[in-house]
Amino acid sequence: MCELIGLSASKPTDLCFSLTGFFPRGGITGSHVDGFGIGFFEPGGYRDFHDILPAARSPVARLLCEYPIESTIALGQVRQGNVGETCIENTYPFKREIGGVCWSYVMHGQIERPETLTLSGRFQPLGSTDGERAFCWLLDRLYEFSLSAPFTFTSPQLSAALHIWCLQLHEMGVYNMLLSEGSRLYAFCSKRLTYITRRAPFGQAALKDNACELDLDAQLDPDMVATVVATNPLTDEDGWVCMTPGELAVFHNGEQVELLKDKRRAS
Amino acid sequence: MCELIGLSASKPTDLCFSLTGFFPRGGITGSHVDGFGIGFFEPGGYRDFHDILPAARSPVARLLCEYPIESTIALGQVRQGNVGETCIENTYPFKREIGGVCWSYVMHGQIERPETLTLSGRFQPLGSTDGERAFCWLLDRLYEFSLSAPFTFTSPQLSAALHIWCLQLHEMGVYNMLLSEGSRLYAFCSKRLTYITRRAPFGQAALKDNACELDLDAQLDPDMVATVVATNPLTDEDGWVCMTPGELAVFHNGEQVELLKDKRRAS
Repeated sequence: MCELIGLSASKPTDLCFSLTGFFPRGGITGSHVDGFGIGFFEPGGYRDFHDILPAARSPVARLLCEYPIESTIALGQVRQGNVGETCIENTYPFKREIGGVCWSYVMHGQIERPETLTLSGRFQPLGSTDGERAFCWLLDRLYEFSLSAPFTFTSPQLSAALHIWCLQLHEMGVYNMLLSEGSRLYAFCSKRLTYITRRAPFGQAALKDNACELDLDAQLDPDMVATVVATNPLTDEDGWVCMTPGELAVFHNGEQVELLKDKRRAS
Repeated sequence: MCELIGLSASKPTDLCFSLTGFFPRGGITGSHVDGFGIGFFEPGGYRDFHDILPAARSPVARLLCEYPIESTIALGQVRQGNVGETCIENTYPFKREIGGVCWSYVMHGQIERPETLTLSGRFQPLGSTDGERAFCWLLDRLYEFSLSAPFTFTSPQLSAALHIWCLQLHEMGVYNMLLSEGSRLYAFCSKRLTYITRRAPFGQAALKDNACELDLDAQLDPDMVATVVATNPLTDEDGWVCMTPGELAVFHNGEQVELLKDKRRAS
């Protein structure tokens, strides 16, 4: 399996502290050694970094812990492959452009019979993971949605549609995922996903996976609101929320702006 | 303007030596300080690295000089912006997927009235450079080509078509570019582009932009054939070939396999 990490923030901020706690899960505190990747939506565009070395000993991962890249949205993964070999093209995040907008995506889980997800051909996988096939299937849906409805990223119709599509994938196995177009961070919990929303006063935080403590008040702008999403909590703070399977949380400017629940489950 | 770098090799090889000579052009020996990027086609897939800091002082560039990423094709740029602000989304290389194949692209030049390049909408720019619009226009052509003809990457029809499209862009200004789908490296010279093809015995090479000399015979597999493309020669070796404006050179496994000339110019 894999572990995911995500960020939504009201102002560009670096993710060095969180990554210092996350990357050890790729080979030291976790066995997710089949490469990793992380993408950043910065004020001037999107870029991502990938490596096939375990994150715990990759020079690319070390750079990302030391070089502060300031983004409002980030999403990444340390990979433990089940479907698809260990290689760059199977390493998340994956990205594609729709209508001049860059969509980026990471997934953790396993879909049974991914070949039953019919693709239009407009978006085709570059690698051989089930998760990339599901991404292309979602992109087909997003593209159709953009043609049939006024395509605004703040549209509740879009969140509702995304939730339905995620629930379909959730029914095919385990499908935890993070998705973004640079404005909203969509987080779908199929089995396990947690998040923490931080606002002033931030207090202290100690990483669970690394002997590292940070005075967040000294680091963060007091006006900042920031949510960090992770498969498992990264710090010893109390505020980590464990999502319920079937939930889609939507984050914008660091705040949760929507939470869609699986009604079939609730009834 | 900008400077370009490219690699085609018969076996995966790292580009650290060439990048050690290339990156100083982003702020020390050259004034191309508006960010840089480089993409690698490795045996297991494609990845790229970008930064908006000048290459001469970017931690990402330093990593790429020290961390040997072995690829058979690479292409990159140090940018001095003329159209489009300095930001990640205007930083080459750009990539898109067609039919499950990743195309990557860098450009150096300036196109007059890029808005006259009509786009289908299938591929849309993420940034605001003339070069990305030209890329999307080329992708439209490549996609149409893939529908109308058996789409093999070794097809001389494809090279001939690419040459015609590049000549059209060349007529709109200055359009030096490198393009690849991971098998062939296409290098079009509009104004200035050079290359060197190295084979055993390789001899010594000293960089022009950095006090660094390398015994290539000690570094390279004697069976290796490798071509390095650059806007201006990177080393003091004799073998650098200066391309003629209007030429499209096609490299495969390190060798030049086609050279298409501008017949109008020759006549």
